[in-house]
Amino acid sequence: MRLAKIVEALGLPSVSDDKEIVGINTLEKAASDQLSFFNNAKHLAQLQSTKAAAVFVQEKFAGELPRGTKALICEDPYLQLAYATAFFAHEITAQTGRPDIGSKTEIADNVQFGNNVTVGEGVRILPGCYIGDNVTIGDHTLLHPNVTVYHNCEVGSNVILHSGVVVGSDGYGFASKPDGTHVKIYQNGNAVIEDDVELGANTVVDRAVFNSTVVKQGSKLDNLIHIAHNCVVGENNFFAAQVGLSGSTETGRNVMMGGQGGTAGHLRIADHTVIAARGGVTKDVKKAGYYAGFPLMDGKLWLKLQAKLARLLKS
Amino acid sequence: MRLAKIVEALGLPSVSDDKEIVGINTLEKAASDQLSFFNNAKHLAQLQSTKAAAVFVQEKFAGELPRGTKALICEDPYLQLAYATAFFAHEITAQTGRPDIGSKTEIADNVQFGNNVTVGEGVRILPGCYIGDNVTIGDHTLLHPNVTVYHNCEVGSNVILHSGVVVGSDGYGFASKPDGTHVKIYQNGNAVIEDDVELGANTVVDRAVFNSTVVKQGSKLDNLIHIAHNCVVGENNFFAAQVGLSGSTETGRNVMMGGQGGTAGHLRIADHTVIAARGGVTKDVKKAGYYAGFPLMDGKLWLKLQAKLARLLKS
Amino acid sequence: MRLAKIVEALGLPSVSDDKEIVGINTLEKAASDQLSFFNNAKHLAQLQSTKAAAVFVQEKFAGELPRGTKALICEDPYLQLAYATAFFAHEITAQTGRPDIGSKTEIADNVQFGNNVTVGEGVRILPGCYIGDNVTIGDHTLLHPNVTVYHNCEVGSNVILHSGVVVGSDGYGFASKPDGTHVKIYQNGNAVIEDDVELGANTVVDRAVFNSTVVKQGSKLDNLIHIAHNCVVGENNFFAAQVGLSGSTETGRNVMMGGQGGTAGHLRIADHTVIAARGGVTKDVKKAGYYAGFPLMDGKLWLKLQAKLARLLKS
Repeated sequence: MRLAKIVEALGLPSVSDDKEIVGINTLEKAASDQLSFFNNAKHLAQLQSTKAAAVFVQEKFAGELPRGTKALICEDPYLQLAYATAFFAHEITAQTGRPDIGSKTEIADNVQFGNNVTVGEGVRILPGCYIGDNVTIGDHTLLHPNVTVYHNCEVGSNVILHSGVVVGSDGYGFASKPDGTHVKIYQNGNAVIEDDVELGANTVVDRAVFNSTVVKQGSKLDNLIHIAHNCVVGENNFFAAQVGLSGSTETGRNVMMGGQGGTAGHLRIADHTVIAARGGVTKDVKKAGYYAGFPLMDGKLWLKLQAKLARLLKS
Repeated sequence: MRLAKIVEALGLPSVSDDKEIVGINTLEKAASDQLSFFNNAKHLAQLQSTKAAAVFVQEKFAGELPRGTKALICEDPYLQLAYATAFFAHEITAQTGRPDIGSKTEIADNVQFGNNVTVGEGVRILPGCYIGDNVTIGDHTLLHPNVTVYHNCEVGSNVILHSGVVVGSDGYGFASKPDGTHVKIYQNGNAVIEDDVELGANTVVDRAVFNSTVVKQGSKLDNLIHIAHNCVVGENNFFAAQVGLSGSTETGRNVMMGGQGGTAGHLRIADHTVIAARGGVTKDVKKAGYYAGFPLMDGKLWLKLQAKLARLLKS
Repeated sequence: MRLAKIVEALGLPSVSDDKEIVGINTLEKAASDQLSFFNNAKHLAQLQSTKAAAVFVQEKFAGELPRGTKALICEDPYLQLAYATAFFAHEITAQTGRPDIGSKTEIADNVQFGNNVTVGEGVRILPGCYIGDNVTIGDHTLLHPNVTVYHNCEVGSNVILHSGVVVGSDGYGFASKPDGTHVKIYQNGNAVIEDDVELGANTVVDRAVFNSTVVKQGSKLDNLIHIAHNCVVGENNFFAAQVGLSGSTETGRNVMMGGQGGTAGHLRIADHTVIAARGGVTKDVKKAGYYAGFPLMDGKLWLKLQAKLARLLKS
């Protein structure tokens, strides 16, 4: 979509350039044919060095943009971003297509595909599954009944998706207007499930707003787990049932989380970290260890805290 | 169903009236062609002013009924209520029908409808969805694959339901017998999803026992959320993933709940209230503010409590 | 599968016997035509009295086996067990078959069955359900849309399964290798849903690794609940939404768990126990009562603790 047309559609002041824009991304990751937005003063350095074609920005920050990046002056850059995401959203249709399928692959009756789907060799897809447009599935993967994989997602080889799994549903992103209503930020990224991953029944991995939500090779997730948009679950993680990761959190290799655990967003959790059941991670975990509690603390400390509380009770 | 027949079917003492009864409701809301029940002395004023045709009631309270309301004398009114709900339950069948569909609406292969379904204009329904008897769906609504909407429910316009969403499953209601077994209270109400609502993957909104469970206009719910029967989620609410609301709780406008939060039943939460992740609401929240913890407290107090506990640990 | 062939496939030292082996089980439950494994010194007495045909065991414990039980000497018995489970796994295919159906049973369009399925009388199965190989379903049971029942599971009579329920998905079991990758332990047991049970929308009951996960007669489980492999939910239990039970935990009769409650694995919870919302059970509950908190404590004590904490806050 031409920049001039985007600006016009949003009712913003016109700009002198008329580049073809192919998408939206963060300041850091935007390429010279992408838009970006600046709504957080903490990211000033990223604004100053962005390669984006144009940036939604308040007037007072417009001088900070690098040469070659156009300022799209507006009062609420996040809200304009939300509106703009709609222009780049995949057109979801109820049409079904015929996939390109490898040898020895079995597709049950009652499985539906979008357009341009590629499925590898030795795959089994059981009844009631839906595989959206442009999805690729590797070899020897098994989809149990009633799995949904949304458009543009990637599922690797030797993956097992249990019934009710949803891969690539929209991440939870909205910009709010002064009247209290919310505008959808279309989630134009995807979700990637790497090789040797297993996802338990009714677990959900949301698609990214930009780029990818990733579950890396060899990770095993139990039932009813929520992986929010733009998370990266590292290699060989173990998450027990009902864990929830908030947006953009990344775990290292061989991280373990006990049942009903959770994390805040935008955190990093170190390789080989073990988090007890119900652990609630509110800060980065920089050092491997055994942690528990909410807010999270050293696991031994948590036990000591329980002992202190027991003593408090008797006092 | 005739009152005399209901009484006979339940093995209760016969009554002199033989009105046609069309349903069951609370003492407060019951109309003159509905039954009700009295099993909680706190509701005596409601018993005294009910408009119900007849009320399941213990003998000792029978004198409290208004004129024109028949007493259905029994030992366990709640249990009789449970039995009676079965007489008014929708007959669920495996038959499928053809919906009435607006222009530009796309229905995928592999979508099934009950009888008497109405779907508006510009709607997209993806594969694997099921829409039960008598459901209405507004305009420009999008149902991702494998969504279920039970009979008699209403889904508004510009609604997005992600994969695995269930609207209108039975609320969780049972009356227990002295032998420890449980009798189902049929959930004869419905669920209403108003315009501009988005429900995340595998989220569930149960139908009401009487009347409606409602998610009001503009509310956005994330994945794996539980909304129990007879809840009312106010306008423009934000609920992060894995939140659970117990039965009959009502939230005001623009309430926000963080991930894995929960509430007890029959609560009211004020407009613009913000509840942190894992917040557990056990009482009404009468004043907007930022709250956290379980039991819920002022958010700053919760932070102070964590500091106190940290100090306790070092003592 | 012949013992010699198993040993050869695993690259273990050959054994003198060549019995036909039909499966794998715990030391305690293994029959004389089953394998077992010993990886926990706590179970030495069970090793000494096992009836298993052969046991994966470290060399230093090989002398403890009873006569008639062969030692399958290996460094990591749990890992060898994991590999061996694959030999006894059900072959999952995308093929669909025709069930044996009782009178007055209604099967909707769009329901798929594996091979050798038996469905009783007066059953209703709504669109989008999948019933795997060798499943039996009793009489007058109701499956709402988009339910999945995996192979070899049993569903009783007068059962209600709400939309999105998954019965018999794989329990969460893996053996880890020194390089940090995980090897699947095939879950060759099943799940049994007894008569008069109701499971809420999107609730999951995993299949057992050996033997059965069971939800006993008359239990009513709400939405989005996780029942791990080898759990036994006793008769007439009430679990509110989003409860999670870890593996091999057993509850007695008429146990009640509030919303978002959870348990550790391998616990026993006494008959008639009541656990408040969010209760986290970390030890056996040996005596009926009302419990709350995490870690779990007497319910009155939990209230007292909250009062103490409130006082601490004011200090």
